[in-house]
Amino acid sequence: MTDFYERSLIIHEHLRGKLAVVGKLPIRNHDDLSTAYTPGVARPCQVIAADPKKARDLTIKHNSIAVVTDGSAVLGLGNIGALAAIPVMEGKALLFKQYGDLDAWPICLDTQDTDAIVAAVRAIAPVFGGINLEDISAPRCFDIEHRLQDLGIPVFHDDQHGTAIVVWAALINAGRVLGMELRDMHIVISGAGAAGTAIARLLRCADGYTGGQRRTGAKDIIVCDSKGAIHKGRDDLAPHKQSLLSVTNREDRRGSLKEVLEGADVFVGVSKPALLKAEDIARMGRRKIVLALANPEPEIMPGEAIEGGADIVCTGRSDFPNQVNNVLVFPGIFRGALDACAPRIDGRMKRAAAHALADAVRDPAPDHILPDALDRAVAPTVARADRNPRSEETLEC
Amino acid sequence: MTDFYERSLIIHEHLRGKLAVVGKLPIRNHDDLSTAYTPGVARPCQVIAADPKKARDLTIKHNSIAVVTDGSAVLGLGNIGALAAIPVMEGKALLFKQYGDLDAWPICLDTQDTDAIVAAVRAIAPVFGGINLEDISAPRCFDIEHRLQDLGIPVFHDDQHGTAIVVWAALINAGRVLGMELRDMHIVISGAGAAGTAIARLLRCADGYTGGQRRTGAKDIIVCDSKGAIHKGRDDLAPHKQSLLSVTNREDRRGSLKEVLEGADVFVGVSKPALLKAEDIARMGRRKIVLALANPEPEIMPGEAIEGGADIVCTGRSDFPNQVNNVLVFPGIFRGALDACAPRIDGRMKRAAAHALADAVRDPAPDHILPDALDRAVAPTVARADRNPRSEETLEC
Repeated sequence: MTDFYERSLIIHEHLRGKLAVVGKLPIRNHDDLSTAYTPGVARPCQVIAADPKKARDLTIKHNSIAVVTDGSAVLGLGNIGALAAIPVMEGKALLFKQYGDLDAWPICLDTQDTDAIVAAVRAIAPVFGGINLEDISAPRCFDIEHRLQDLGIPVFHDDQHGTAIVVWAALINAGRVLGMELRDMHIVISGAGAAGTAIARLLRCADGYTGGQRRTGAKDIIVCDSKGAIHKGRDDLAPHKQSLLSVTNREDRRGSLKEVLEGADVFVGVSKPALLKAEDIARMGRRKIVLALANPEPEIMPGEAIEGGADIVCTGRSDFPNQVNNVLVFPGIFRGALDACAPRIDGRMKRAAAHALADAVRDPAPDHILPDALDRAVAPTVARADRNPRSEETLEC
Repeated sequence: MTDFYERSLIIHEHLRGKLAVVGKLPIRNHDDLSTAYTPGVARPCQVIAADPKKARDLTIKHNSIAVVTDGSAVLGLGNIGALAAIPVMEGKALLFKQYGDLDAWPICLDTQDTDAIVAAVRAIAPVFGGINLEDISAPRCFDIEHRLQDLGIPVFHDDQHGTAIVVWAALINAGRVLGMELRDMHIVISGAGAAGTAIARLLRCADGYTGGQRRTGAKDIIVCDSKGAIHKGRDDLAPHKQSLLSVTNREDRRGSLKEVLEGADVFVGVSKPALLKAEDIARMGRRKIVLALANPEPEIMPGEAIEGGADIVCTGRSDFPNQVNNVLVFPGIFRGALDACAPRIDGRMKRAAAHALADAVRDPAPDHILPDALDRAVAPTVARADRNPRSEETLEC
């Protein structure tokens, strides 16, 4: 894999930025200038001043996304800061364009203070139709996203919900392959950061909607951090981990990751490389679904998981089957939300996206649980579902 | 002129935004994804984390401009707010691209509080190579720009300095046509807002550099606001007008605009339509240079000014000769500043830009004082001068 890194550096040196801003109309003469700019531009300005909603009809707002980070949790690199995060945010914007036909621009904030980040995002919001929060460390990411939900445009922390939606889709199809329902799955999540927390919350309140019949979400989820299961007896829990107690670990089980994984149907790793061995997988339940999503090195390599008896293995990598990649979700869910002028991305839209993503795989099989990350048909499908969620009921997650 | 407004509205409705973000490389396969995005992108991120200066070599920062407004003083429309300002800022970005090959993105701020604006611009700075402040009302614009000069990238309020530089260039060439030096011109400025203040300051400290010989800036400048000349006896002056007292109106003349204009060589209007009549121009000095820049209706129409004996007339309009248009300056001055990695746009660079702009007119004549606003050769010329100012001495303005 090393050569990807060197090739990437060479390409970045060559391009000096992966994005360009282009004009959608040429200025060929003074008439062009007078309509695109002054004096003619005064007219659309006045129309918007009289009716702010018209900004979506007359400007880039209907199609623009801010990819906002503070550089505090970039890839597996950690807190490398705003400048060093730019290449990732440019890449994200590139994918927004390619898969969602959205005009996304990186906003890398020179602050890691929660209040300052909230203030900055509020300040820049007018020109954007949506805010994709990215690579902001837990627990600040929860508070920042929560406080921005009243902004009038979708504010969506992709590391949380994008990942959670793909995991949900993967479990729907894993269930289809193995004849299980999400509600019956015993799930152990390794990692109580942004992704782990969001996955637990979404799967808990998910409905296992299949074949027209409504079912409730996963009933048995245990989240582990580096100290093992998060349970009521622990006095070392940060607030966001404490809040998991009410939605996870109903039997208040205690013990290490390996201990609570015994007998479980599903392992979801969003934590650290090489945590598990084949023997740990072997001690899972009769059905063994392994999502080892640490990147680039997973919690357990697919070959070792299969050696331990895993029925289905997903990773975050493109060089193995069943890649869990957020690009399957964020372009489509934002595309749909902007098309619908949705003021936020709510639980119903997340559910619709997860089901659309699962349904995009016509014949799920152990090594074909999810669509290919590069499949351009996925985002429009997710967008359509997102614009028209199947159910009118709310879904709080 | 009315049809420009309707045509502009139709075009804006059709395009729904004049800008698009495009990727500079395609994602055709998993290898492309692995170099443009994860995992390969980690490498350029690490290089920047180790040496922040490398951000200019590896990202859009080397070529990106934020066009920042708070919507408080948009065109002649006044305080129409952030959303309604978007079409203007998009137009500005379009011109940055067309003339400076710069990637500019509108940032319309949902606040008009000076501290909040300064904080927001500081927060978003990392991804940008320059900040173009636009359509922010006086006097806040002075404070905002001043407080951001330590940001490490150029922060330039175009309504002030862009206008002032074009006016300087126009006066250099008007002087060439009429055989006068800037230092000898008696100048009356109508308007003590952002543009009027900046013009007075720049012309005051300008050198009338011609033919290798250095001369000092204009010695006799009177600025008028709606109450007439700004002089020491007035007790109604806001701080930014008070500060003009030390650099203008040396003889402390008093009276209305029309009174102080008597005998003057130059009228510069950045104020209101139809303030002057032919008879007011007739009472100017032997040489009469009239820059009537209120837009779209100037302080006096060119025909009437010529009737009053004006030798040279400039307006802000493209349907008369000698258009004073900031597009002659901002793309080039930012292009040069970004190419040179300049931390700010200083007086030397403004001087270099003004002279390059004046020199871009090979044979100045009364109806050919400035290059055409659409002349694509101008910005590269200004950029070259801006990268290589002629003199090592500083110029504080």
